Parts: sequence; C-alpha cells; structure tokens
Amino acid sequence: MKQQLLKVQNFNVSADGFGAGQGQSLERPFGHADPGQMFAWAGATASWPTRTDPGGSRGIDDYLTRDFSHNIGAEIMGRGKFGPQHGPWQDHEWRGWWGEEPPFHTPVFVMTHHTRPSITLSDTTFHFVDADPGTVLKQARVAAEGKDIRLGGGATVVREFLEADLVDTLHVAVADGVTLGSGSKLWDSPDELLDRFHLDVVPSPTGAVRHHLFWRK
Amino acid sequence: MKQQLLKVQNFNVSADGFGAGQGQSLERPFGHADPGQMFAWAGATASWPTRTDPGGSRGIDDYLTRDFSHNIGAEIMGRGKFGPQHGPWQDHEWRGWWGEEPPFHTPVFVMTHHTRPSITLSDTTFHFVDADPGTVLKQARVAAEGKDIRLGGGATVVREFLEADLVDTLHVAVADGVTLGSGSKLWDSPDELLDRFHLDVVPSPTGAVRHHLFWRK
Repeated sequence: MKQQLLKVQNFNVSADGFGAGQGQSLERPFGHADPGQMFAWAGATASWPTRTDPGGSRGIDDYLTRDFSHNIGAEIMGRGKFGPQHGPWQDHEWRGWWGEEPPFHTPVFVMTHHTRPSITLSDTTFHFVDADPGTVLKQARVAAEGKDIRLGGGATVVREFLEADLVDTLHVAVADGVTLGSGSKLWDSPDELLDRFHLDVVPSPTGAVRHHLFWRK
Repeated sequence: MKQQLLKVQNFNVSADGFGAGQGQSLERPFGHADPGQMFAWAGATASWPTRTDPGGSRGIDDYLTRDFSHNIGAEIMGRGKFGPQHGPWQDHEWRGWWGEEPPFHTPVFVMTHHTRPSITLSDTTFHFVDADPGTVLKQARVAAEGKDIRLGGGATVVREFLEADLVDTLHVAVADGVTLGSGSKLWDSPDELLDRFHLDVVPSPTGAVRHHLFWRK
C-alpha cells in the first residue's frame, strides 16, 4: 500500500517563527498578527480555496495553493484553528470560522481536551478528539482511506507532531518583513529541521514570503 | 461554468529552444537530444508519473511534476509524440511508446493527417484527428467534461496553438546547459510570449533547468 504522508501545507509564519500572534479572539483569529499581510501571497493566486472571483496569478505561488487538496483525505488541526474558545464548551453553537461550506471537504480531527459530538457541514465532518499525536494520526489515516493527511496547524500542533517525528513534508511560507515578538511559535529558525529534512527555499514572486519546502531525509 | 484551461506542463526545451532534436526514431524518441539529460530534474522527483521506486525529492520540482494530472480531463498531442512513423500508417500495430498502461488516464487527441481507428489502453483512449487546433480543442473540451486540457507537445504543436492564441498556461523547463542546434523548435526566446503572458522564472534546485511559468495577462 502506498505511504500516507502527513503534510503541512501553505502554513504562514513571521520572520521570528510565529504562526499567529497573541490575543486570539472572534474578531482576530490570528491575534495581533495581520492575516492580510501574512496570507497576501496566497490570496493573490487563482487557486486559493476561498477565492471567489475568476482572476489571480497562475505562477509558482499558485502551484503551492492548488496543491492544497491534492490527494488529501483528512485534516488534523488544533482547537485554536477551529475556534477562539478556551476550556469547556459553553454551548455547541460554534461550528468553526468557515460557515456552511468549509474548505476542507474531508473528515477533520480537532485536537482538544474538551470533546463534543461530531459536526457535519457540507462535505466536511469535524471530529473532536482528546488524544496524543500518534493516536490522532492513526484515526486520521483510517479516515483518509489511503490518501495523505494535512496537518493544518496552528503552530503548537505542528510543533507537537514534529517533536513526535510524525511529519513527512512541510510547506512553510516565511514572511521576512513581519515580526510578531510573541504568540504561537513554530520555531526559532527553519534550521532546526535540517537534521531530519531536506529543504528547498523558493522566494514568492510577490516578494512577501520565501517558501520553505521540507521533506524527510 | 468554470473555464477549461489549455495547459502545457513539464515541457522541456534546450537553451536554444528545441523540444527534441533531429532524427527521431524508435530508438531515439527525442532524436539527437538526450532525454536523460533534459528530463533528469523531473525523474528525480517523487511524483514523476513513470517513477517506480518509492524515493524521490518532494521539494519545488515535485510540485511541478505532481501537478501533471491535477484536474486534467484530456490531452492533445502531435503525431511525433505518439510515434516515430511518418506518412500513411503501414499497419496499426504501433500503439504508442508507453506500453499497456499509458500515463495519461484520459482521452488523448493525436493530431495527424493520417487518421486511424481509436485505441484504448487501460484508462487511456487515443483518438486520431485531422483538424486545425481550434477544432481539436473543441473536441478535447467536450471529452474533458469540464476539466482542463493538457497540451502535450511536441514543440511544433505547442507553437501552432500559441499562434492560434489558444494556450492559457505553460510550464517550460529550460535546460540552460543543453544546446541542440536543430530539431523541433518552440521559440527563439521565452521573451516572445511576454506580450501576452505573465512569467515567473524559478530555478530547479537541481541546477539543471529553470522553470518558466506563463499565464495569460
């Protein structure tokens, strides 16, 4: 059977390694970070999943965004990516940031100590799991039915899977011009991964980020 | 309905713009050009369609090769890509270079003045059509059922579709270290397309080619 990869895709961090700033809220899903600034390279591409108008670039940045769903059968994400709440759920009205048509189109495993019943929105089903990375990955592998699994973040979750040595490939877009100082941290430097991963670095033609593409040695 | 793009993908040319050398034959499908040299960047990637072992790079070159079949519903190719014969078919024994499992997995339209009955090999069906580029593209659009169409080459066919202004995107890998002098020519220079297309140029980390990514202005 073909290997099922665990992949980080289109993940954005600041020059100092933060995937999101401090103070996440309903109004500011990325805390004090400006997602418009950090995601601008992706939003400019023709294939960005939430793009609605027909324009957009079809150069190298578009290869990266249109790979988003390619052979992906499930996603794993942290609770902070699903919503801004902390602690026990006050109610079950919150169903994610994405409205009735989430851009995942697969099962999604939300890691949280506070589980709740699964939610289906269009062709995306969110499952809430209280388990360690290895156990969640096993569940996601079954759900993905032979396809790869996307590790959707945030940075804390990516770091946990890296520490457990479960990640096969990463695409991290580093915004060289953005410094956050605090928040959810992925790394001090991309060099931390070089003992285990090959690395290609490709500048976005927008000049806003450099794409860091890692795969296992 | 979503636009159906006509796309050139993973097309290799020499520094002087030739997609293949002179003297194509059964033994030398690319004439005096060395395909090993021109395709080495692609063969090194994990997703190259004819790769059989599990290794291979998963960096930027792999994004380009794994996009090969993404949302593609048909291919158009010249007769020279299908086989080395010229003139009327002596018999119908030749069924392409690719054996019983061609890497296309869609309908393929072979442009030739010498038509013959369609051939199905696994999930690829070759149709032989004697028509101008616009007419062939219309047939391919219907066959692709809403998906995009790959323009598979050779260089002569790509040039004909460019002259008819029917091409939407091109990925051409230019092998800076290879000069052929003669053969099947795509262009004198990539600059010829800049009046109609945007261009990103991205060096392959192998150092063997620079990827030229064009999309319509």
